[in-house]
Amino acid sequence: MVELRRDPIRNKWVIINTNRILEQDLGITTHKHIDEKICPFCYGNEYMTPFPILSQNKQGQNVSDKKWDIRVIPNRNPILAIEGNLSRRPEGMFDVMTGIGANEVIIETPNHNKQVYSFTNEELSNVIKVLQGRIRDLKNDIRLEYILPFKNYGQAAGEIIPHSNIQLIAMPIIPKNVKEELDVSKKYYEIKERCLICDIIDQELKNKSRIIYENNNFVAFTPFASISPFEVWILPKEHAEDFKNINSGKVYELAQISIEVLKRIYKALNDCAYNMVMHILPLKQDYLSYYHWHIEIVPKISRTTGFEIGTGINVNQVLPEEAAKFLRDME
Amino acid sequence: MVELRRDPIRNKWVIINTNRILEQDLGITTHKHIDEKICPFCYGNEYMTPFPILSQNKQGQNVSDKKWDIRVIPNRNPILAIEGNLSRRPEGMFDVMTGIGANEVIIETPNHNKQVYSFTNEELSNVIKVLQGRIRDLKNDIRLEYILPFKNYGQAAGEIIPHSNIQLIAMPIIPKNVKEELDVSKKYYEIKERCLICDIIDQELKNKSRIIYENNNFVAFTPFASISPFEVWILPKEHAEDFKNINSGKVYELAQISIEVLKRIYKALNDCAYNMVMHILPLKQDYLSYYHWHIEIVPKISRTTGFEIGTGINVNQVLPEEAAKFLRDME
Repeated sequence: MVELRRDPIRNKWVIINTNRILEQDLGITTHKHIDEKICPFCYGNEYMTPFPILSQNKQGQNVSDKKWDIRVIPNRNPILAIEGNLSRRPEGMFDVMTGIGANEVIIETPNHNKQVYSFTNEELSNVIKVLQGRIRDLKNDIRLEYILPFKNYGQAAGEIIPHSNIQLIAMPIIPKNVKEELDVSKKYYEIKERCLICDIIDQELKNKSRIIYENNNFVAFTPFASISPFEVWILPKEHAEDFKNINSGKVYELAQISIEVLKRIYKALNDCAYNMVMHILPLKQDYLSYYHWHIEIVPKISRTTGFEIGTGINVNQVLPEEAAKFLRDME
Repeated sequence: MVELRRDPIRNKWVIINTNRILEQDLGITTHKHIDEKICPFCYGNEYMTPFPILSQNKQGQNVSDKKWDIRVIPNRNPILAIEGNLSRRPEGMFDVMTGIGANEVIIETPNHNKQVYSFTNEELSNVIKVLQGRIRDLKNDIRLEYILPFKNYGQAAGEIIPHSNIQLIAMPIIPKNVKEELDVSKKYYEIKERCLICDIIDQELKNKSRIIYENNNFVAFTPFASISPFEVWILPKEHAEDFKNINSGKVYELAQISIEVLKRIYKALNDCAYNMVMHILPLKQDYLSYYHWHIEIVPKISRTTGFEIGTGINVNQVLPEEAAKFLRDME
């Protein structure tokens, strides 16, 4: 059973998905390093996963089992699944929506022991291009409103299978956190006629104290009000709302800066678990002068306590300027 | 250094507190059962804590070390501290506020091995009365806007010291999550001229499927859109906005239902870690026809993944009706 239920007091949707395997999410049956012989993301074990959506080599050609470099599969335990009609209904004073959507896994490499920080720029560029393709494809499904690409690295970050992968979830709503960013950015634009994130980037590039790394088209910095120690954002320097169509040159630069940042996090924080999310444009929009796509990397350092749950206020023990200096000086 | 920084994109405050001991929060130096000889909350170790705000016996009389039944101390590593002036300033396009507030710890019992689920109703009633007193006292500080009482039970929930305690944090802002509840409740009231939470309670009491336990004045149920498996709310059945002044009879019933619920969670979930928070009225208000105080108990069962961080949507694998049945039948 999968459905979306709206909490009228907290004013947000919750996904009730009783098909998920609880023990897996509890981490009870998983380990940091599972036996490679049974890893469902390794060569020879392709039969263990659902039929692939895509299986391709370095050149982007479709290839069969044991020859792929990147493979995209539906998640075997999807948070939201693609089958069914989208329907909404009341339940007394409550609101329910059927839980349709898509939950895909991009297996980034056939190499069980390789993580993104040690990818070549070409390898990660290919992954990013596959992700762009999946977003362009899912955009055709008119039931869907938003896609969130994300990565759970390390068990503390919710990783189930340690073989390098990213997930994407397509959903029939614009999620609360994205809506909040869109609303605030829109209000700012109405006053200033400038993109809020463009202005922040402008200020960060002048101020320099929170910059970690930059190349021609992208910049990485710790946000002024980082929600976690060593949080890092990666953003296009120029206004850009459409991730799915950025050209190969920019894809290459995005791969380069991402590897550079993840390598530093790996070294500086002793292979710390982290979550990485990408905030892109809602699917039914092609252009928004006030929204700017970006990547957020949140290392799993602090525990969530009652204070965070009750207030929604994060407590961060590391000054973002010091975190940035530490990561900037790390090579 | 403690300051509040506002994230303009996420539209929320973050507390940057570099005085907090990072290793403690990381859980690196703590254990589920620390050596009782060095527990700072035990008899004989009172010198290890800051000077107490209150130290009283069962009868509510002030008593000295080694004779107290409940002791209130300032947190040694406060998230927000009481000294200083409240000031606001811009930092370029960003907003900063000085981090004043209060962070107190109520040591609920001198008994190192006793947790709330095994308290007597009288013992917990006394703790609740002390909490009411602390809220009435802190309300006199005009710099403060809100107080959040909360409990971190178990290391996974952010517990540092396993000796039974609750914390309260008083802060110079109304936190995002509470503001959201207030805004939604206010809008509902404007249309219906009824309290949103009163209406939910009415529906839950009629529907019965999510009720766990009730006594004369209080009810405990799993919320329709529970954010975590086995989440439980405890609420006064009749409209009530003012927790700090509820009378002894109601305090006793609140203690009774809380112990009843925590005992069931303890048994059903194998002594699972949980966070408990109380949402009360903002300090500068004495009456609000549209807000209803309540307690939220969130067992630490699911891990936060990139999906939750990116969307703000929780994924819950247990149907709230089944969770309620399980806890209802448990004795």
